[in-house]
Amino acid sequence: MQKKTKKKTTPKGKGEPTDKLVGFGTNVLTQINKMENPDIKLPIRALSNIYFDEKHKLIRLGDKISHRTYLNVAHTRKFMQTLLVASECKKIINQNVTTSIRDLYYALKHTIPGTNENTFEDQSESDPILEDLEAALNTLREALHLQADRKGYVAGPIMINDSGDRIDCSKMGSSGWAIPSNVEPEIIKFEKCTADFVLVVEKDAVWQRLNEDKFWRKQNCLILTGKGQPARGTRRLINRFHKELKLPVYVLTDADPWGYYIYSVIKQGSINLSFLSDRLGTPSAKFIGLTAQDVEKYGITKNVTIKLNQGDIKRTNEMLKYVWFKPKEWQKELRHMLEKGYKLELEALSSKGIKFISEKYLPEKISKKEFLP
Amino acid sequence: MQKKTKKKTTPKGKGEPTDKLVGFGTNVLTQINKMENPDIKLPIRALSNIYFDEKHKLIRLGDKISHRTYLNVAHTRKFMQTLLVASECKKIINQNVTTSIRDLYYALKHTIPGTNENTFEDQSESDPILEDLEAALNTLREALHLQADRKGYVAGPIMINDSGDRIDCSKMGSSGWAIPSNVEPEIIKFEKCTADFVLVVEKDAVWQRLNEDKFWRKQNCLILTGKGQPARGTRRLINRFHKELKLPVYVLTDADPWGYYIYSVIKQGSINLSFLSDRLGTPSAKFIGLTAQDVEKYGITKNVTIKLNQGDIKRTNEMLKYVWFKPKEWQKELRHMLEKGYKLELEALSSKGIKFISEKYLPEKISKKEFLP
Repeated sequence: MQKKTKKKTTPKGKGEPTDKLVGFGTNVLTQINKMENPDIKLPIRALSNIYFDEKHKLIRLGDKISHRTYLNVAHTRKFMQTLLVASECKKIINQNVTTSIRDLYYALKHTIPGTNENTFEDQSESDPILEDLEAALNTLREALHLQADRKGYVAGPIMINDSGDRIDCSKMGSSGWAIPSNVEPEIIKFEKCTADFVLVVEKDAVWQRLNEDKFWRKQNCLILTGKGQPARGTRRLINRFHKELKLPVYVLTDADPWGYYIYSVIKQGSINLSFLSDRLGTPSAKFIGLTAQDVEKYGITKNVTIKLNQGDIKRTNEMLKYVWFKPKEWQKELRHMLEKGYKLELEALSSKGIKFISEKYLPEKISKKEFLP
Repeated sequence: MQKKTKKKTTPKGKGEPTDKLVGFGTNVLTQINKMENPDIKLPIRALSNIYFDEKHKLIRLGDKISHRTYLNVAHTRKFMQTLLVASECKKIINQNVTTSIRDLYYALKHTIPGTNENTFEDQSESDPILEDLEAALNTLREALHLQADRKGYVAGPIMINDSGDRIDCSKMGSSGWAIPSNVEPEIIKFEKCTADFVLVVEKDAVWQRLNEDKFWRKQNCLILTGKGQPARGTRRLINRFHKELKLPVYVLTDADPWGYYIYSVIKQGSINLSFLSDRLGTPSAKFIGLTAQDVEKYGITKNVTIKLNQGDIKRTNEMLKYVWFKPKEWQKELRHMLEKGYKLELEALSSKGIKFISEKYLPEKISKKEFLP
């Protein structure tokens, strides 16, 4: 993907995804012409085929393959659906339009002539077919001109070029630049960036606080929020900020199992989208906070901590066993959390004053490089 | 609020909300000085005090008042909380910072010295107190420097000035201008707008489709999405677009009870925030679609319609009785929906082709002025 940033635009209907779709279709056609039972090869997207790549520190999809063949009654319907989705993707790429996965479902849903069978009954049938296709072609749905859900904002010294419009993220007022669903280099180009790092913030309210204090100007950084678990586009953008602009990535979440999980997904990808980890994960990301240990370090009063519930305790015990939480700093933090029996939210820092987070907590952690790995 | 657009900026710690907060506090203090039982008057925010203002076509709060007094054990805790929230609001206005309602809760939560009592146990205690205060002072939380949740995007020929940054909404690429939580005239100014109307779209995916087709350029309009039920800031922005820029407002939702409800909230406000209807509602808004009647009008195939469930049927029957759905066009539509037994989503139009919505459906409805009232 790196190379593509140098291209100006991908010519209409050409380029990597179209080639892959054509190859995919040609392969099926060749088998039919040879009077063979058409067979589509799909990577198995189940836990049995997932592993943690220690070298690159990413959750990866293994090389186990399943076969989807036409002349197998258990496969026929899905085989037909896979070809329909692939052909619709090729059509929308050729038309140079983008659409949503819901539109894709509606565009393909019809009754097969001469039968009472619908091609798709529900979007829950077309969504996994699309993921199969992404995995089979080793491509992103965004490259297939399909929008994923979008949320998240960026502010700071970077000039973005989005389809010809130049957007200065240091002049976006109180709202910031809204991260679009497709941030691939064909659409989103980085024209100029003078930031020293990216601060990824779990919560939009905290992002707004930092933006109002012009934290990004004082610390010369980009501030980015994914509004909870970041959408695919946001994770891809963090990945591109790091890979292409060489920006260190620091992640700020609540001190709770959910916050730590968000961090881990940003860092090494997710099991569900393991086939995209190298495009969505940022293994060198660091965790800046919050930690349960911050309560003592910063003298945060106990009445703004929250008691761990049964679910939190179970989850934390599971996380203690994950390979990617094995570093001793994480083991210490997770054990400390269990021992103290509390978690806390970013807003708890407000009990120390509204500007505490932007004027003391973050600057101190950054200057001392006090990160968890 | 209209007048304020002419002011450059509100001086730090001055202006309407501060005056109101000072008045509120002075009133309590005066009573204490007179050795009276301090008494706060609050409008009753319950269904018993809600009515539909036929003249202005808005859901309104009546004039029934409740009293919250200090020397009443059933009121003492809430009385204390109300003063805490009011005083924190004054403090953050004076500091000229903005914060979230969650931060407000954390900033105020503490153990009362010499007791085991916390000022607040949970955010569910501080949120309604804030709404009480908004209603009592007849002001918006945004004016009290508190962020509400934000979502929604705008594209089209308008130049926005957000705290000094000029944002050209016709040059915001694929993502649009993100609507901030506070769109009050002190923060968000409309510098130049050449649009003829505003199209409000329920779904972001549909907005993205329209933005990609540059629908706003072809129709010379603003396109806005609230991503489902619009947040307060988005409803306030629609209200300001109409009041200050005199733009007609057309609303596009799914043809289902939820879509019709979204429309009704944009148009006449909600029961919950009835004390803000004149700032959040836009009574002259028109409904452009989708309707269940469109299925026949545009020859949409039945297999992309969705069967009404029991909840839909119950809800539609309730809506038939609402004053604001009394116009005969709405009665006809709701009865038609019940009769046919189906609803449909905006994406169903994709079964007629991906550009059907932007190139045929909407232009035709707009040119023929085919709206529901």
